[in-house]
Amino acid sequence: MNVDGKKYRTIWLAEDGGSVEIIDQTKFPYAFEIARLHTMEDAAHAIRVMQVRGAPLIGATAGYGVALAMRADPSDANLHAACSALLETRPTAVNLHWALDKARKSLIQVAPENRAAAAFTLANDICDEDIAINMSIGMHGMELIAAISRLKREGEPVNILTHCNAGWLATVDWGTATAPIYMSHDGGIPVHVWVDETRPRNQGAFLTAWELGHHGVPHTVIVDNAGGHLMQHGEVDIVITGTDRTTATGDVCNKIGTYLKALAAKDNNVPFYVALPSPTIDFSLSDGVSQIPIEERSGLEVSQMTGRTEAGAIETINIVADGSEVGNPAFDVTPARLVTGLITERGVLEPNRKSIADAFPERVKMSA
Amino acid sequence: MNVDGKKYRTIWLAEDGGSVEIIDQTKFPYAFEIARLHTMEDAAHAIRVMQVRGAPLIGATAGYGVALAMRADPSDANLHAACSALLETRPTAVNLHWALDKARKSLIQVAPENRAAAAFTLANDICDEDIAINMSIGMHGMELIAAISRLKREGEPVNILTHCNAGWLATVDWGTATAPIYMSHDGGIPVHVWVDETRPRNQGAFLTAWELGHHGVPHTVIVDNAGGHLMQHGEVDIVITGTDRTTATGDVCNKIGTYLKALAAKDNNVPFYVALPSPTIDFSLSDGVSQIPIEERSGLEVSQMTGRTEAGAIETINIVADGSEVGNPAFDVTPARLVTGLITERGVLEPNRKSIADAFPERVKMSA
Repeated sequence: MNVDGKKYRTIWLAEDGGSVEIIDQTKFPYAFEIARLHTMEDAAHAIRVMQVRGAPLIGATAGYGVALAMRADPSDANLHAACSALLETRPTAVNLHWALDKARKSLIQVAPENRAAAAFTLANDICDEDIAINMSIGMHGMELIAAISRLKREGEPVNILTHCNAGWLATVDWGTATAPIYMSHDGGIPVHVWVDETRPRNQGAFLTAWELGHHGVPHTVIVDNAGGHLMQHGEVDIVITGTDRTTATGDVCNKIGTYLKALAAKDNNVPFYVALPSPTIDFSLSDGVSQIPIEERSGLEVSQMTGRTEAGAIETINIVADGSEVGNPAFDVTPARLVTGLITERGVLEPNRKSIADAFPERVKMSA
Repeated sequence: MNVDGKKYRTIWLAEDGGSVEIIDQTKFPYAFEIARLHTMEDAAHAIRVMQVRGAPLIGATAGYGVALAMRADPSDANLHAACSALLETRPTAVNLHWALDKARKSLIQVAPENRAAAAFTLANDICDEDIAINMSIGMHGMELIAAISRLKREGEPVNILTHCNAGWLATVDWGTATAPIYMSHDGGIPVHVWVDETRPRNQGAFLTAWELGHHGVPHTVIVDNAGGHLMQHGEVDIVITGTDRTTATGDVCNKIGTYLKALAAKDNNVPFYVALPSPTIDFSLSDGVSQIPIEERSGLEVSQMTGRTEAGAIETINIVADGSEVGNPAFDVTPARLVTGLITERGVLEPNRKSIADAFPERVKMSA
């Protein structure tokens, strides 16, 4: 998307054709810096320290990591070593596993002298595939926004609430939850986005606000507590969030607090949509609340906050009374009964087993 | 309540019998300091800069402010001047208005030479009345907690979730939402409190956590996003919050985010109680969502955060992407249909017009 008028992806092949550039997301929201990856180790480091984050972008970075490794040494041994090293950076990331599996399986069949070129092509393909999925999600979601817009007065914006960052910074481009927003905005539909701060890691206030602002999309940051009140007063027309994991029955596991917004949407007849690339659907799961284990993360994410002082320094402060215990569950599950629809690359699905299975029959067969 | 084993109120007559001491709440949560009020101006300053906060405590401080004024100059003119000056510190505070009205009306009938003594007695009475109300709330609420505890295994705590600070620091002692918690804990019922951080002003993480910790009540600070997930997994037995304003029909206006917790409680069959001294009931209101205007406060409360650096300095940092708009509605309304009961000084009431009117017939008559 645009950063102050110039188009970017989060990762791209550098002009030299043999190294890779990324937006260094550890510098957000206070600086916009490009980092150059010359080696597989650079790519692994970028994933590990979260210069890149978000499942699709992690997968793409791993793809380029393999290509950088093949450029240095295209042997079978190094192919296996590179895949192993990259997988260890974030062992639980599904897209990372998928991208590396794909790379290893296809490159092992290529003669070593052609592997670097093939690996770069593969990494580019992973990026293009992510973009194609997100654009499809965007077009299907834009129809929902356009339908709401047609009921508004001329120039009156559609008010969209989102939680966390399922934005282009988490993907190669467009984002998932944000794709319908960017397409609507670029297509001339007036939109305004309520951006949940998303404690404890503040991905909303730091990342979503940054990317919407730099693309020029009108938005307002609010605390996570405020969405229900806004819905009670008709100030939210539609909620669109992302998801980390979706069950075969349409339950949605997403950043902690999503469930509370879904409850408020239901209570106020505000449509609640979840945008997702189909790989996040786990066809082995049928009950999200009981089956999905929720990661308990470090309490320091809650008790400490990092930001910029008036003098311009980046500083970390403590924001919880001394001696208090801190709990930090990172995700929650929104039951399908609270979800209006799932915006996928194959259209907007009802959140139930039949609708999901009908749209992705090949996935159902695989998991059977 | 206790601060590390020593009993405190938030305000008290100093040992010299002619000045007043308060806990300076602007120093929380990083320091516990006592401030001395010698003059009416000291009292007005304490209210204005929020060394004291919370409706009941503000009323008590105003009462002492009048007494300090009468000690300096007990003339009619100074009585009126003092009441006017104190009222201007927080013009919208209902308890402030009520306390000053009461002081002015009763002291004007007292001969000037007796006014200082009468004013100190009046201020002491305001404090004792607040404590009596809170203790009644505490006893009625403790019965609810005790009933849950009887269904638990020996030693297993009752898990109580609270939002914001309706604690003893907002009153003279005991607090409103916290009174049942302190009485249960002191009475040997095992309790554990989930303390919502309460963005944007963090009264939960700063004040509620501080006071529970120093009294010795087991508790865990969580982000405002986490409560729904905890309720889905049976980790919350009861929710108790305070309220700023309650309608005659039982709608509750409280700190922003309360409504979201009430929705989650309803969705998970967790009882949701609101503790309130009856003066917060506004018998002129019948529909909280449409009738109660919600204060929009400064966006700086959202975009800036103050806390302590590792080096021990108190520092303010920016925590929102540059250039983004910020919204900050300060309260929301929880409709009566989501409230299990109102814990008042006259017992636990159903949140409906009849139950509330039956408990406070004299108030209904006054507002008719």
